[in-house]
Amino acid sequence: MIFVDACYCRKTERPPVWFMRQAGRYLPEFREIRKKTEFLELCRTPELVTEVTMQPIRRFDCDAAIIFSDILVPFTPMGLDLAYEKGEGPVIRNPIRTLADVEALRIPNFQTDLGYVGDALRQTRNALSPEKALIGFVGAPFTLACYAVSGRMGKSTEEMRQWMFANPEAFQLLMDKFTEMLAGYLVYQAESGADALQIFDTWGGSLSAYDFQAYFLERFQTLMRVTADLNVPRILFIKSAAHLRYFLPSIGAEVIGLDWTMPIGHSRRMLGPKTAVQGNLDPASLFADPEWIAERTRAMIEANSGQPGYIANLGHGIHKDTPIPGVAAFVETVKTYQF
Amino acid sequence: MIFVDACYCRKTERPPVWFMRQAGRYLPEFREIRKKTEFLELCRTPELVTEVTMQPIRRFDCDAAIIFSDILVPFTPMGLDLAYEKGEGPVIRNPIRTLADVEALRIPNFQTDLGYVGDALRQTRNALSPEKALIGFVGAPFTLACYAVSGRMGKSTEEMRQWMFANPEAFQLLMDKFTEMLAGYLVYQAESGADALQIFDTWGGSLSAYDFQAYFLERFQTLMRVTADLNVPRILFIKSAAHLRYFLPSIGAEVIGLDWTMPIGHSRRMLGPKTAVQGNLDPASLFADPEWIAERTRAMIEANSGQPGYIANLGHGIHKDTPIPGVAAFVETVKTYQF
Repeated sequence: MIFVDACYCRKTERPPVWFMRQAGRYLPEFREIRKKTEFLELCRTPELVTEVTMQPIRRFDCDAAIIFSDILVPFTPMGLDLAYEKGEGPVIRNPIRTLADVEALRIPNFQTDLGYVGDALRQTRNALSPEKALIGFVGAPFTLACYAVSGRMGKSTEEMRQWMFANPEAFQLLMDKFTEMLAGYLVYQAESGADALQIFDTWGGSLSAYDFQAYFLERFQTLMRVTADLNVPRILFIKSAAHLRYFLPSIGAEVIGLDWTMPIGHSRRMLGPKTAVQGNLDPASLFADPEWIAERTRAMIEANSGQPGYIANLGHGIHKDTPIPGVAAFVETVKTYQF
Repeated sequence: MIFVDACYCRKTERPPVWFMRQAGRYLPEFREIRKKTEFLELCRTPELVTEVTMQPIRRFDCDAAIIFSDILVPFTPMGLDLAYEKGEGPVIRNPIRTLADVEALRIPNFQTDLGYVGDALRQTRNALSPEKALIGFVGAPFTLACYAVSGRMGKSTEEMRQWMFANPEAFQLLMDKFTEMLAGYLVYQAESGADALQIFDTWGGSLSAYDFQAYFLERFQTLMRVTADLNVPRILFIKSAAHLRYFLPSIGAEVIGLDWTMPIGHSRRMLGPKTAVQGNLDPASLFADPEWIAERTRAMIEANSGQPGYIANLGHGIHKDTPIPGVAAFVETVKTYQF
């Protein structure tokens, strides 16, 4: 698999390519299915998950598929009342407020509580051709907490950070519980057929370098330790993590996902030759003229200077209104590039 | 003025201290005035502006006052229909969509169109004791554009960046017009009594290093050039700018404001000895126990290693729900610190 080879910094003839949120609303064939199916119902129906996971592979022939799901699906078996309200995104109807709320959270039994995720991974792995990788994923502890504590995500993590500073004991226990849950969930996904695992940390970059180091470095290392022997590469994507790049190699993920703000060449020098990188075109740039997109995509690849261990991707999830020709220009440019 | 001395990297006995949005809703005396006065009416009434600007000075004896205003007040004379809707924040009722919309924007005559800002600066300068500095401010071109283009600010700058990539010509002209307006507005504020000028760029850090360099480096340099002979220090605060720190010294501002994510010591090494820094406690940390705040505030100051050119501040604007004892612990710790 060209994708897995790049994750392990093995030489490939061109960069592999996929993009975050590639199974999603910018695709008309996805919107067709969503018309008839609520979001959480879709996540819980393995046949439909396989179908929407395969859609971008059929259309763009990407090198990896990412299982269609949501970082918040483990909330329901943990005891958090998750719903998706029209136009609102995810809402937690019983957000975490007190230490007792945190103590009441349970660690799911993945086979019985989230068996639909394992089924979807197995079915999708069967549907995918052998040279394509299947990516499983989770949300990082701090990002999960932003939803669990705020109830609905606002413009920033300010509310979450206020709670963190005002409730240090509850915060630490919540992070321990999420880390324990995530360790089991990552292992479960790899054992169910995922060829690679990605941790999404949309909000961890809003922490000071001090707080990230104090509260999250060891927890990420724990997640890497428990998944070390599964023989699948681990990708850590922390958005807005320019100030955290110094710490990242010590976490031990095979791949660091870069958001669009960070220069690839400089980031590689900071991360060292053993860490692969993934990214990082600004998703908004897919709204530009396709010829210009092709030019910027080539410049992105060239910033990597031909080093092994590079995966082409956007710097964040693709936006629901993205024009398809822009996406096609991006993928096509990568797939015809020769190192 | 201890504040101005620190801006110019002159030795001071302790760090000067103020905080962004220090005249604001976390103060009960401010909320009293706001009960009776709409937001824009308050901005346009010099007597009230002076009163609310002085409130945090009276309560906390900060070393600098920042004139109470809003980065968007120049929008009205430019032809953008600015309003503040209850619970919504600023709304532009005729957002920028086309090149023609940009061409129609006019550059204000500051004396006649924004004379209330000049009056407020003069009155506040008279009310302030001579050892306190008065700070004037503007918003940066990209941040202003986020409001002008999106109409109301969402969770991210994605919509603005999509417009930027899809409308390169209109974008460039809009940035030129904002830069021209800002040059005049900065000069006007210094000539009206401001002892220092701060540029707030809340959203510029959401640009890739490539786009920032291509579109904004020269424009910021222009703003520095036109204000170079006014004999007031210039402070550039770009939020989430960890990936942009390499470029910042070349802009030429006397002071770089650091948000809370960036380590002070490391940032100073990157910025060099001639650039003062300002910041950067996480505003959310003021929700913690006051003793713990004092400890973190001391750690923040110590991260500067006693170098001249350090101004204590929060890493972003203070939140409206911040407990007053937390604010007091922060200010008191700085004011009793000895280098």
